[in-house]
Amino acid sequence: MTAPVYLLGGYQTDFARNWMKEGKGIVEMIQEAVSGALTAARLEAREIEVAHIGNFAAELYCKQGHLGGFLAQIDPSFSGMPTSRHEAACASGGVAMLMASAEIEAGRYDLALVIGIEQMKTVDPAVGGDFLGTAAWYEQEAKGIEFPFPKLFSRLGDEYEKRFGLKEEHLARIAEINFSNARRNPLAQTRSWFTNETLDLASGKYAKPAAGRLRVRDCSQITDGAASIFLASENFTRQYADRRSLKLEQLPRILGWGHRTAPMKFDTKIFESGNSPCVLPHTRQAIVDAFRRAGLADVWRVQGIETHDCFTTSEYMAIDHFGITKPGESWKAIEEGIIDFDGRLPVNASGGLIGGGHPVGATGTRQALDAFKQVTGQAGDYQIDGAQKIATLNIGGSGTTTVAMVIGI
Amino acid sequence: MTAPVYLLGGYQTDFARNWMKEGKGIVEMIQEAVSGALTAARLEAREIEVAHIGNFAAELYCKQGHLGGFLAQIDPSFSGMPTSRHEAACASGGVAMLMASAEIEAGRYDLALVIGIEQMKTVDPAVGGDFLGTAAWYEQEAKGIEFPFPKLFSRLGDEYEKRFGLKEEHLARIAEINFSNARRNPLAQTRSWFTNETLDLASGKYAKPAAGRLRVRDCSQITDGAASIFLASENFTRQYADRRSLKLEQLPRILGWGHRTAPMKFDTKIFESGNSPCVLPHTRQAIVDAFRRAGLADVWRVQGIETHDCFTTSEYMAIDHFGITKPGESWKAIEEGIIDFDGRLPVNASGGLIGGGHPVGATGTRQALDAFKQVTGQAGDYQIDGAQKIATLNIGGSGTTTVAMVIGI
Repeated sequence: MTAPVYLLGGYQTDFARNWMKEGKGIVEMIQEAVSGALTAARLEAREIEVAHIGNFAAELYCKQGHLGGFLAQIDPSFSGMPTSRHEAACASGGVAMLMASAEIEAGRYDLALVIGIEQMKTVDPAVGGDFLGTAAWYEQEAKGIEFPFPKLFSRLGDEYEKRFGLKEEHLARIAEINFSNARRNPLAQTRSWFTNETLDLASGKYAKPAAGRLRVRDCSQITDGAASIFLASENFTRQYADRRSLKLEQLPRILGWGHRTAPMKFDTKIFESGNSPCVLPHTRQAIVDAFRRAGLADVWRVQGIETHDCFTTSEYMAIDHFGITKPGESWKAIEEGIIDFDGRLPVNASGGLIGGGHPVGATGTRQALDAFKQVTGQAGDYQIDGAQKIATLNIGGSGTTTVAMVIGI
Repeated sequence: MTAPVYLLGGYQTDFARNWMKEGKGIVEMIQEAVSGALTAARLEAREIEVAHIGNFAAELYCKQGHLGGFLAQIDPSFSGMPTSRHEAACASGGVAMLMASAEIEAGRYDLALVIGIEQMKTVDPAVGGDFLGTAAWYEQEAKGIEFPFPKLFSRLGDEYEKRFGLKEEHLARIAEINFSNARRNPLAQTRSWFTNETLDLASGKYAKPAAGRLRVRDCSQITDGAASIFLASENFTRQYADRRSLKLEQLPRILGWGHRTAPMKFDTKIFESGNSPCVLPHTRQAIVDAFRRAGLADVWRVQGIETHDCFTTSEYMAIDHFGITKPGESWKAIEEGIIDFDGRLPVNASGGLIGGGHPVGATGTRQALDAFKQVTGQAGDYQIDGAQKIATLNIGGSGTTTVAMVIGI
């Protein structure tokens, strides 16, 4: 019997911002992530017992490691509070959630702050793309390759094409839904990118080729951003609820989680998955683990999904890997409008990564925060009606590390 | 009541090696850390359920992130096994130990492999020193400063000088003990640095000024290296012991741990500690926490210490922070021979960081492995007679993140 871990709310920075242009760095971003979370959850700094930071590569983008050291630097009441940083490329926010919840389940602490964070608009796009290559096997998959990740995720599409067939129109529709949903999200990177009333993704700069089968619209954009969220033990949450005249049962929990790591190299993944019905079987397994731990029979027990659409191909993959369709039939869910904002199972009501932005280490935490907002009815214009349980899927590398969660009441 | 976490053994690479000169990289180092640990602990790859990697900055030194992705790459039986990487500068190995043990305490897994790892001999010393600056507040404490860390730890000595007085001869003796102990350790970086029979630290290159009050002999040297260790639940350990005709009680555990984080900036630390009897009160607190959790009244209940002597000043600090002497009186323990290899409480029987080498992210795990070796009587020529409990102290940054442990039977 595992001790429950509750979510008490948190904060997301505006993913459209460019912090360097504001003269601000990652320390200021940590500061805002902390103060915003305290305000949102109506907690005091002195109540936090431990902080976990999810970050991919501040060493490269910001020439700064050891981010945990900044908590006590920005607020003396954190002095002595234990901190650590966790990394699994674009799943860094997800593993930070896992480490924070493990320490609570182990009974070490009652209130943890998780901060997913990345400042990326510090270098030009080519250098940034090269840095991202360190999330793959750099020597073998990225060195000397311009923008390695779009190429890797184009190959995910190639694999679908080979096994099941894949039409460009379905990827385009995934992009369209994400950009469209992002317009409802006041913190989304792209919310005002389309000044006219129509989303023109079929021509112009968004339709330009990016890599392989992917066009610009198929790719999420890196950005600057942080998302923070409080995780708490049952004891703490009971007192927290009492002080606010809430019932414990009204507060959401991590109902289940899955964590799996596949071989680093995309070639190895695909070679290995040859006999599996799913193209990325370990990603599938992480989802299955999360639903099993949550005691949910299938994907229809959740009212929405926040998935890792670093590219449209990864969302296309997620659709069948979540079991919304049979393997290879993700297109059916797209055509039937199932994943639309007002569909049977909305995917990325927030706009996801393509619409919302992808500050790499923040994404897993941002997904958890969006799940929290949905299940507590605080998602504003992108609120899913009747959302009680939301599934999240956070992926690092070319499908290498997967962290899946079910968050809800 | 916390679930116990056992140590089943592990492996250390030879810290005198230069992997780049051997034509090998960090992937080969992970491979050796894994296979060596499996052999040492007589376990099969398929038994490992989760892997945690402690690493400071492979992004900088090796242009490679997402190290957890290499486990399944090097052995297909790891495919799908969850992995993550943890960082707190030079305490990265320590936080990886904490995260692995948290997941076991939480009941998530029964057998975890922890790998502390760093390949650093990939860049010239000036660049490497600059990279290390990201363990401090780079912009404010390291940028444009040649070798920032010796300067910061010289200032730790300055603070001792100011508060209590500090003699160079005592720092020199700390260096001498570590270099001398290292000669007994077949994996120590410096074991054959002194070709004649005498350790000449008082003249020649080892006596050259390094930074501030520190000479070359006062500084540990970065190197390439990995240390891996298995952590296991009581259930797993019971079966493990049965299969080997051992008793559960013969196998060592993490008896207690402490984890504290101070403000990043050295100035802030010193300003804040003004009213504390200890110069680094949060480091002191981490030690106190570890002994309290272990149920040990004082430092005399352990038979040895593996401490973080990145510089002689940090070991000088550790002596009084462990409570071997009153604050400021570390020199007494040095003069009385207490910390000598054959003293009442040997410190760094392994040679520590100064004698053994400091592959940054590996150090915390290497300390735990040396503690395991001591308490199971496998430390060979550097075995402490009758060692049943060993304390470890792993420090990241200028005393920023501290992980302390008591390991024993």
